[in-house]
This record gives sequence, structure tokens and C-alpha cells, in this order.
Amino acid sequence: MTGAENLVSILLKAGVDVCFTNPGTSEMHFLAALGQEKKMRSILTLFEGVATGAADGYARMADKPACTLLHLGPGLGNGLANIHNARKAHSPMVNIIGDHATHHKSNDTPLNSDVQSLSRAVSDWVRTSYHPDVIAWDGLEAVLAAKQAPGNIATLILPADVSWGESAGRPLEIATPPDTPPVSPDRIKKIAAVLSKKEPTVILMSGKALREKGLEAANQIAISANATLLHDTFVSRLERGAGRTHINRLPYFAEDASQRFAGVKNLILVESGRPDSFFAYPEKPTRLVPPGCKLHVLATPEEDSLQALCDLAEEMGADSITPPVYEPQCPELQTGALDQLTAAATIGAFLPKNAIVSDESGTSGLGLLKLTQGAPIHDWLYLTGGSIGQSLPVATGAAVACPNRKVVCLSGDGGAMYTIQSLWTQARENLDVTTVIFANRSYGILNIELFRVGIDQPDPAVSELFSLTKPNLSFCDLAKGMGVTAHQATTASEFNDQFEKAVNTKGPALIEVVL
Amino acid sequence: MTGAENLVSILLKAGVDVCFTNPGTSEMHFLAALGQEKKMRSILTLFEGVATGAADGYARMADKPACTLLHLGPGLGNGLANIHNARKAHSPMVNIIGDHATHHKSNDTPLNSDVQSLSRAVSDWVRTSYHPDVIAWDGLEAVLAAKQAPGNIATLILPADVSWGESAGRPLEIATPPDTPPVSPDRIKKIAAVLSKKEPTVILMSGKALREKGLEAANQIAISANATLLHDTFVSRLERGAGRTHINRLPYFAEDASQRFAGVKNLILVESGRPDSFFAYPEKPTRLVPPGCKLHVLATPEEDSLQALCDLAEEMGADSITPPVYEPQCPELQTGALDQLTAAATIGAFLPKNAIVSDESGTSGLGLLKLTQGAPIHDWLYLTGGSIGQSLPVATGAAVACPNRKVVCLSGDGGAMYTIQSLWTQARENLDVTTVIFANRSYGILNIELFRVGIDQPDPAVSELFSLTKPNLSFCDLAKGMGVTAHQATTASEFNDQFEKAVNTKGPALIEVVL
Repeated sequence: MTGAENLVSILLKAGVDVCFTNPGTSEMHFLAALGQEKKMRSILTLFEGVATGAADGYARMADKPACTLLHLGPGLGNGLANIHNARKAHSPMVNIIGDHATHHKSNDTPLNSDVQSLSRAVSDWVRTSYHPDVIAWDGLEAVLAAKQAPGNIATLILPADVSWGESAGRPLEIATPPDTPPVSPDRIKKIAAVLSKKEPTVILMSGKALREKGLEAANQIAISANATLLHDTFVSRLERGAGRTHINRLPYFAEDASQRFAGVKNLILVESGRPDSFFAYPEKPTRLVPPGCKLHVLATPEEDSLQALCDLAEEMGADSITPPVYEPQCPELQTGALDQLTAAATIGAFLPKNAIVSDESGTSGLGLLKLTQGAPIHDWLYLTGGSIGQSLPVATGAAVACPNRKVVCLSGDGGAMYTIQSLWTQARENLDVTTVIFANRSYGILNIELFRVGIDQPDPAVSELFSLTKPNLSFCDLAKGMGVTAHQATTASEFNDQFEKAVNTKGPALIEVVL
Repeated sequence: MTGAENLVSILLKAGVDVCFTNPGTSEMHFLAALGQEKKMRSILTLFEGVATGAADGYARMADKPACTLLHLGPGLGNGLANIHNARKAHSPMVNIIGDHATHHKSNDTPLNSDVQSLSRAVSDWVRTSYHPDVIAWDGLEAVLAAKQAPGNIATLILPADVSWGESAGRPLEIATPPDTPPVSPDRIKKIAAVLSKKEPTVILMSGKALREKGLEAANQIAISANATLLHDTFVSRLERGAGRTHINRLPYFAEDASQRFAGVKNLILVESGRPDSFFAYPEKPTRLVPPGCKLHVLATPEEDSLQALCDLAEEMGADSITPPVYEPQCPELQTGALDQLTAAATIGAFLPKNAIVSDESGTSGLGLLKLTQGAPIHDWLYLTGGSIGQSLPVATGAAVACPNRKVVCLSGDGGAMYTIQSLWTQARENLDVTTVIFANRSYGILNIELFRVGIDQPDPAVSELFSLTKPNLSFCDLAKGMGVTAHQATTASEFNDQFEKAVNTKGPALIEVVL
């Protein structure tokens, strides 16, 4: 067998059975191996940022890595922004980057580039496979590295000759990654002691602690200690909806966020880091917590936060508390003008049970969280690394991971245009994604940020530089061009009808909400 | 003044007066400085790969750098593939990469990344500007580095606080980059001696040697020495058309290319490197020249190749030779089925005088060169770094550089989808670009390459992995969605009519040629 065949075979054995591809000549043998292996689902994308973002969405919902297949350094470059986002989400991912044959690399022909350096800048684990006989081992290590808590970016560079070379198909035992390390009883006791003082305390959560069971334990702890429960502003996946326990989101803007920490004496971190403002602003602090506030780590992202929360609740004798849950609630539908709040009501009213929401609504998302918290249970996936253009690919990958759940993608118009090619893959694979584009015709956040950085009387030409008018984009035409059904909503009742129909019809659809 | 204002001012003084942007919060002060400086033309793009590709196209036609404005590491990532292509074109370019404020960087918030490492992997010159008082100097050095022969990628990382900080506006003398070094008389004599032996010889050219005057001198030399004149397969800019002197292109496929060197004893390199095959293939050599062939460098890309060619022609007493030129020729128009050859005839027949052709036609370009060589004089710009998705952005930038010339962009369907967002910027700036999309509904080259790497009986599922059907893309809908007029041609006469009309109408238009 070829090196590529051996690699595909070991990926499958290690549980990686989805590959998001955008290949080229140096990947031909890997592609041939993919094509003949029916157990591997290979999904073509038109742009690498779609492939990497889809692998992120897949990992968040499947709790295991997909692989990507990218074409040399420039292919990695195109996929880089969403690898960055996935890394900040701690999503496991295995990138296979084709490269020139080892004997051809030094010829420095047009497509040659420094793939290693590019890979290292965005990966947790990087290796170049140098011989088809060891490729299975390299591939296995890549999967193990990706799977290790909290989830890592593993990048395997695959020279063309290693891919096409004859490979010894030695059987290889599939190791399992080490268990996620538990938090010591000592630390549990220390945190319990802090909480027992009943000082003003915030528990800040992220990562896998935001699944149903972790939230329940965290609520028991918070109730028992009279502490406030918050989750990081941008988290990879939050289980929420009617019947699930409460948690509030740390606001994006530093002024609002630091208010949540005013007077707080203790901050308990669960898979979170120290909260700082997203950007720095002139003459403003970046630290969100007040000087006197002590930070205590209950669990790092590398540790078993769920068990730690359960242990802590037990230690505090809080594990029999029944925390309150969100009541089922259906927002009242509006029929007049369409704005952020009426749109949020529509989404809250029709969000189906077990929906997956990929949220990059940005400034258009006002009211969304409140108006959806009483909808049937669902998962909420955020833009984790701040690089816009993630939500359409993440929705694509989530739909591949969960074919029986409706995916709702909420995107600003600016962000959608970075990876709009996602729609074609959704059409090709008939993925069950309803995409809502909030068309406010600008990079809305920049209007706000311009003021916040201290430019309060900008030259009119400045805001032209982030206006998306002249011409207006038509997302209906763009969707149609890629085979996805689309409608434009200009009134609340139009959006009510269109969204209700879209979420109750299987397959991809897009709605352009004109704000 | 702010650091950003000082930087914009020095960029202008150093001759950089076009900025292709895709900004974010960390670039707000630079954006404010851009907006208030009317001499700087700031052009918004929806995706960073459009900005960097446009800067490349601009530089090729203006012979000077534009700057780009990109948002942190992920913004650089999105622009990276076309920076790679520009670097291989030796296009001068100044990238301004916004980064977090210096005091915020270590907080490692979501958008933080290793901007320095990413920049180094794709740039010839990299600096982080650390103080608003020295920013003008940093900016000036960036421009000088970009301008130095043969043209370089200069990347200036601009932390937000250096951008917003008060900057001492000391007057700075604008240095000029050193003259491009001449080739020594000694080397000219040595090459003349090689040529005088009249052994089978090829002169292989690239870079600025391919302008009209260089081609004329090279033809004089080739005629005098009975040598063959070729240019590299993928060159940044070639001046050609009726009335200009001859040159042939080195074929892409290694088998064809090595035939051109069969029996050749001397290869004279003019801004070219040793020719090697684009990719490596199993059991095939990557070296294109035969073992006995000697390589002689007339001029490296860093040297003054044009002067060297003139000096060599004079040294050989060939400078009074009048080389033959391409005769004006209008291909016969077809009216039946539309294919690569009939489409090429249409383009050859209607290509306007002084057109700029941005060519990424790939496998659909068969016949193009022959059928356009007798068209009125024009410039031909190739995909230089092998990363597809360059031609639409390059066309965009070329149209900005040369507002009085028609730009014709020829793209495959697969390649067009990487940077399709270019169309919106073309509409917004009303750029005079006619885009022709050859829709063969596949990554056509991969069908050929699969066979060439030795996979001659692939599983049918393999070619599905690079088929662009299911669903077919509609480029007319995509163009319409971004405000560009579009038509689909399914017969030769439809394409004749549509192309003739498009090149004779000012402003952006797109034609989807269904193959």
C-alpha cells in the first residue's frame, strides 16, 4: 500500500472518519486513498477557511477531531484564520498539509514555502512525516495529540513522495490518550474554604464545564456560596434552553464586563483564564477584575473540570440542591418593522428542540440570548478567536457531526463574506443548516469601536471605510449562485414566515434579514 | 499628531498613495488617519486575500508598492496566499498589520497570535514598530525595503498604542533606494563568449527583462547567436501583442518543458532560476535541463537585467538587428459550439489596445497565447506562486493602477471561488474589469495530474472529490449579488457578443463561459 493509504487507514482506526478537503496536485495520492476508503467521509470545500472552520464545528459537536486536507503553505494560509479560532476553542483538529516531495523541496519552485514555520505559528503539535514506513505512527501521534485535553491543533506535513511511496503496512496498536487529569482533593478543599467565607465571589467558566452536568454542579456551588456564575464571552459550546440551569455571559465591552466584577473579592476560574478586555483602548485598563480580587483556579482547560465541579459541590454539601432552570418561554411575535429585537423574538419562537446555533451575529445579536433562553434545549457555539468568518464553516461542520439536528447559523453580513463559499458545501452535502444573515450594511462593530478608541468626530470618509453599501450585497443572489434556497426579509412578519418554514424544512436555506 | 497620522504622511511622501484595506478594531486610528488624508486612496475589500492580491496587481502595473491594512495574525493569514504569489512575482508591497497594544499583547486574549512568526514566513522584511516617535522611520524603511530590486514584501507590524500615541512629527528626508546594481562588463563579455560558440543555447527570461525594450535586445542577441528565447512559465508581466518582438513560453508540464531543453548545451538565465518541474512526480526527474547543459547567469532578479541585455547586444554587435515582430492578426470568430479554442479566438479578436490580461485560465487557456499574440499591444500577468485565487484580485489592483486601460481577467471556476469577493470591490470602485470565468465544473488540472502522478484507474469517487458539479455554481448570480453585471455564454456567438460588448463598455462585468 502507499503511504497515503496507510495514513488514511490509521486515521480511521484512531476514530477520524471525516475529512474536509481542498486538495491540489501534491495531495493526489492522499485523495486517491480517501476516494477508495468508503468509511472515510470526504467533503470538498471551495476554500480552505471553510474546511478548517468546518473541522472546528465538527469537533465541538462530535467531541472528536475531523481531519482537513490542505495544499501546501498557501492552502494552510487560507485555512489559518479558522485554525486560529479553533485553537482558541480548544477544538481537536488534525490538519494534513501536502508538501512538495522531499527531493523537490530544495528546488524552491513557485509553490514552495516555509510550511513548517507557518504550521508552528498556529498549531500545538507539528510534524513532517519523512518516510512512508513511519507514516502510520506519525498519523496516530497526530490524532493522539489532537485528542489530548483540552483539544489541540495537530498539523502533519505530508511530502508527496512519502504519500506515494510504498509503505510497510505493519499493524499498529491504537493507543488511547491519557485520561484528563483530575483536580486534587486538596485543591477542591481549598476552593471550598474560599467559598465558605461567603465573600463577594464570581465563578467564571469556559470549555467543557458548560455542558449540562457541569452547569448543574456549578449552580449548586453558586447557590450554596451565594456566588455569581458567569461564562466567558466567547465559548466553544454552551448547553442551554428551557429546563437547563442558569448562567450569564460576561459582556463583551470592557466597561460592562468590569462592572460585573465590581467589589468582587474572589474569582474562581473553571477552564477560564484571567479575564481581560478583548482589545486595549487609550487610557483605559485592560484588566477587568478590581485590584483586591483574588484569583483561584479550580480547573485549567487541561484538567477534568466537570469532575472538579461535582467534587466541589459534594465537598460543600451542595450536591442535593436543585437549582432553578429556565422556564419554557415563547417570545411574542411581531409583525411590523424588522429589527434586531423582533428578529431575536422570531428565532426564540421557532428554534427547534436540539438545535445547534452557530452565532457570529455581532452587533446584530442584541436580545438574542434573552429571547432564546426559554426555547427548547439547544447548543450555542460562539466565535472563539475573534477572527470573523467562522460561523458559516462552523455551522457546516456541526451539521456533518449531527445530521439529525437542525443547525441555525446567525451571521453579520461583513463576517459572512469571508467564508461565503460554505454555502456550496452545504448544498453539495445537503446539510440541514438555516443561515440567517443580519444585513446592516456595515462592519457594525467598527462604528462603535471607533467611538470607543476615542475618535468621536471622525471625518465622514472614515466610516465609508467600513460601510458595506455601494453596492449593497444581495445574499439571496449569492446563495442562489451556490445552490442554496434564499429569501430576503424586510418586515418582521416576512422573517417569521421564512424562518418558521426554513427550520421546519430539511436542507440548507438562507434568509437575508435587512436591518 | 498620532503615530498613525505620521505613518500615513510618510507613506505618502515615499510615494505610496494607495491602500487596500480590511481593517478591525486595532486599526481604528490608522483608519482615521487614512480617512482624513485625501491624497491616499483607500480601497475597502471584503476579504484580505483580495487586498493582498490587489496590491500585487497594482505593483506589477504601477512599478511601485501599494500598502495593505490587515487585522492581526488571522487577517494576515487570510491575505497570506496572495502575499506568497506576490513574493514569487517580486512585487513590491508594504503590509501594515495591526496588532494588540504592546501592554495588551501578553494578556493573550482571543485575537492574540504570533504575528511576527507568520509575517517572517512570507515576508522579505519584517519589523514591529515599538514607539510612535520612530514610526515614520519604520514606515520609510518598509517602503525602501519593498522598492529595493527586484521588489520585496515588507511587513510592518503596528501595535494599537503605537498607532494612537502622540508622535513627534519630525521632518524626515526621503531617501531613495540604491540603484539596481549593474551587471559587470566582465560578465557581459563571458556570456558573449559563450554565445559566440553557437552551441545549442536557450535564453530563459523572467521579471523586468520581459518589458518591450528587454525583449527587443534579447531578440537581437538570440538572432545573432542562433539561440532560442523562452520566458519562465509563470511571469509577473509580459509586454506582447502586434508590433512587439517574439518570445515563447516554457511549457508547464515537465515532459513538454524538458523537450525544449533537449540537446541544449548552454542555458543563459536572465532574472530566471534553474528551471525545475512545478511538482515532482513518481519516478520522474524534476530537473528540466539535460545533464550536459551549462547554466550561465546574465542577470539575477536583483540586477539590472534590461541594461545587461542592451550591453550584451552591443558587445555582440547585434544592437542594430531589427528583430521580427508579431503581425497584427484577428482570429476568425466562430458561431457554433463554445470551447476553449473558440473562446480564445473571441478574446484575441476583441482584446482592446493596451489591455491588461490577468491570466489564471489554467487548463481552459489552451490556444489563448497563440490567438492573442497578434492582438493590439497588451500586458499579460500570470499566476506567479501557484496558489489559485490570484487573478481576480490582481485584475482589481491593475485596474486601480491603470484607470485608462481595460483589464481582462481570465479565470477558471475553481480558482475564482477563493477570492470571488473581488467583484464587490470592482463594483464599489467602478473598476474597468471584464472577468471571464471558464466554467468547466471541476478543478480541471487535477484530472490531468491524477493521471500524471500514476493513478490511471482511479476509483470513481476520487474524481468526485475535485468535481465542481452538484450543484453547479452560477457565476452570474454570484456577480449580481456583488453588484457586477453578468452574462452566461453557452455558444460561441453568445460569447462573441457578450465579450465585445463588455470590453467596449466602461466598468466591471462578468461573463461565465460554460465549457
